[in-house]
Amino acid sequence: MTAMPRAERVEMTSLSTADEPSRLPRVVVIGAGFGGLAAATGLKKAPVAVTVIDKRNYHLFQPLLYQVATAALSPADIATPIRAILRGQTNAEVLLAKVADIDKERREVVLEDRRVPYDYLIVATGARHAYFGHDEWERFAPGLKKIDDATELRRRILLAFEQAEIAAEEAERRRLLTFVVIGGGPTGVEMAGAIAELAKMALARDFRHIDPRQARILLIEAGPRILTAFPPKLSEKAERALSRLGVEVRTGTPVTACDEDGVQLGEERIPSRCIIWGAGVAASPAAKWLDAERDRAGRVMVEPDLTLPGHPEIFVIGDTAHALDAEGKPLPGVAPVAKQQGKYVAKLIQARLADRPAPGPFRYRNLGNMATIGRRAAVADFGWLRVNGRFAWLLWGLVHIYFLIGFRNRVAVLLDWLWAYLTFQRGARLITGPNT
Amino acid sequence: MTAMPRAERVEMTSLSTADEPSRLPRVVVIGAGFGGLAAATGLKKAPVAVTVIDKRNYHLFQPLLYQVATAALSPADIATPIRAILRGQTNAEVLLAKVADIDKERREVVLEDRRVPYDYLIVATGARHAYFGHDEWERFAPGLKKIDDATELRRRILLAFEQAEIAAEEAERRRLLTFVVIGGGPTGVEMAGAIAELAKMALARDFRHIDPRQARILLIEAGPRILTAFPPKLSEKAERALSRLGVEVRTGTPVTACDEDGVQLGEERIPSRCIIWGAGVAASPAAKWLDAERDRAGRVMVEPDLTLPGHPEIFVIGDTAHALDAEGKPLPGVAPVAKQQGKYVAKLIQARLADRPAPGPFRYRNLGNMATIGRRAAVADFGWLRVNGRFAWLLWGLVHIYFLIGFRNRVAVLLDWLWAYLTFQRGARLITGPNT
Repeated sequence: MTAMPRAERVEMTSLSTADEPSRLPRVVVIGAGFGGLAAATGLKKAPVAVTVIDKRNYHLFQPLLYQVATAALSPADIATPIRAILRGQTNAEVLLAKVADIDKERREVVLEDRRVPYDYLIVATGARHAYFGHDEWERFAPGLKKIDDATELRRRILLAFEQAEIAAEEAERRRLLTFVVIGGGPTGVEMAGAIAELAKMALARDFRHIDPRQARILLIEAGPRILTAFPPKLSEKAERALSRLGVEVRTGTPVTACDEDGVQLGEERIPSRCIIWGAGVAASPAAKWLDAERDRAGRVMVEPDLTLPGHPEIFVIGDTAHALDAEGKPLPGVAPVAKQQGKYVAKLIQARLADRPAPGPFRYRNLGNMATIGRRAAVADFGWLRVNGRFAWLLWGLVHIYFLIGFRNRVAVLLDWLWAYLTFQRGARLITGPNT
Repeated sequence: MTAMPRAERVEMTSLSTADEPSRLPRVVVIGAGFGGLAAATGLKKAPVAVTVIDKRNYHLFQPLLYQVATAALSPADIATPIRAILRGQTNAEVLLAKVADIDKERREVVLEDRRVPYDYLIVATGARHAYFGHDEWERFAPGLKKIDDATELRRRILLAFEQAEIAAEEAERRRLLTFVVIGGGPTGVEMAGAIAELAKMALARDFRHIDPRQARILLIEAGPRILTAFPPKLSEKAERALSRLGVEVRTGTPVTACDEDGVQLGEERIPSRCIIWGAGVAASPAAKWLDAERDRAGRVMVEPDLTLPGHPEIFVIGDTAHALDAEGKPLPGVAPVAKQQGKYVAKLIQARLADRPAPGPFRYRNLGNMATIGRRAAVADFGWLRVNGRFAWLLWGLVHIYFLIGFRNRVAVLLDWLWAYLTFQRGARLITGPNT
């Protein structure tokens, strides 16, 4: 059962021969999100040996994760094995492993039980949600970044309706049927809209002692409006679309406490058994590994060419990086930024290897922002075009299908959506996990 | 948010009014597997109030569970919310709750925090795997009965290949690439075949340091042949089909020990990191709740009309019951038996309520047995017709699609199979769960 030496493997940097000198420069990519994958595939034809390290075995299409949390899609519909994506790229290998540290002196990535040497390092480890110094809230108000977060939220949401059905007291039933989404960014807006649709359509006729349509859904935002990345007019449209779905939107309302019985909004108490965190974002521990200067969200400050200051061989991209646009404002933590940065770094490395002049500083080309608010409602901002309603919703769907990876997932998501659209049902209404 | 009184709800036994006398006889069904659901839906037009109690919110199509464990299908493809199935049945309600006991004197089902009174009780709680007095083996050799079992096995199987890819020592790599399936019944045969296909096709080109096609898959059976429910000739065919897939079949080989490093077969030691239990079956604790006479597998001994001796108001069906066929042999624990028993009990209750003569004793109509062994190979025994190979495989697929519940799941499974057949890939290759 030894490794079969195939033609394509001969020129690879094998782990087992990592201590021998290799002829090909070694590029190590940490993280197979949008940024890391774009960098790895951008190096497909480069004379390098690429190693992609990720702690999970799949690339996740995060923009649709809220649909897993609200029972519309299955996890497998929006996740693709990293190995399958890179199967045909013979200069790439994939390691399922957790990174413990980065040794900049020896140019090695430190895993739990081994070290992986690099000539170039691309750090694309993404972000998690931040609780602004209130990490104890996480237990009561979980966020949404991973598949397991999504199935846990799905469990909590569906379980709330089940428990309401058998609740003996009216106050408890009310508490169980109150859903609080914290954070008015795209995640929060999409979650609130999807929960409202779940309650008002898919579950409407399934219970005997409660009417799920009476569920109360609140979207809480500390700032003055929701969807601040969009122009104020589209924020307004989104707010109105949410109201039509029955979501109570509260802007200018900071959350002051979270516990298992509800949330505190200053003086006001909202009793709830299901709180969802869609607010702050904190970068992964990459800044600590790199011992680098970071911003308040923990993102690594990078040079205009996305390198770590003083380390032209280390690149930091995506949600892990604090990069600036042409006007000097930090770039948002969205998929298109990460993808473009990944491609840029792949080009830059190739230029350096070929002794060609390096491309200029990284410039983000903003192709637009979109968010959906449920059935036939969305907002889209392309700069030159701002749309909302049915057309924006169709566009949103097309764009998301297009950017999904793999034919199977595209067909699966399209069919699930078609089915949900026609029947008002949800295809993945399973309560799984602990105690089931 | 009080319950909306709808026309259809007026005549229902509401939980909150359970202590008032109800006009309709209350039928409580414990378990929404094949038997319980058949009983509940069989009472659709009966003048009764049906309460279905299950600890999970979905009905599971267990015959395809092994395909979830081997990454071919998503959990949602073979699970349907019980509420959605019974949505249109206005005389039925569903409770998500765990049963703690049954109070035969007071005619109440005891839940964790309440009691549900019944006039008729149908116990259809299914079975779990048994370790023949070696419960400590469960940790090392998990079985396959629930969705969470399947995702855990999927995690172990996929993780074994990932860890083999980075294993430093040849012995450990070999151990990681050895899969041992214990038990030569349909579950074991189907698991062994599916793991072989996963290794030899879907994963074949995805690794750089191992060749998944070199994986060793063993199917261990203590008895003299596999698939003992089939005629010896079909067992032979199945064994040959497994060998063609590269599965080593060992019959007449009892397992004497299991630990985290492998299994012991008498003198012989098989080092393995992934052991799967497809052997013995033990009934749920229903016999204990009922304080009833049981067989060695814990199944409740029932009268020819499936009632508990001395309790004509209590029925025990499916894997929970030890019922006999016309020749006095115990009926097998398969879906068709449970379904036919559920329908029979529904008819019997209706006959009693209408003061019609009760139907005779329960008679199982055996419509056939099937098991699949991978791509284009299966065995099927209809008594009058015994087939194997491609035709049996097609038949197996059609029958399973036909018996799946819900249009969405039928389409989803059909498309997943079609895609897998054409591309040799698996659609749900996700490692999820603890530490991911």
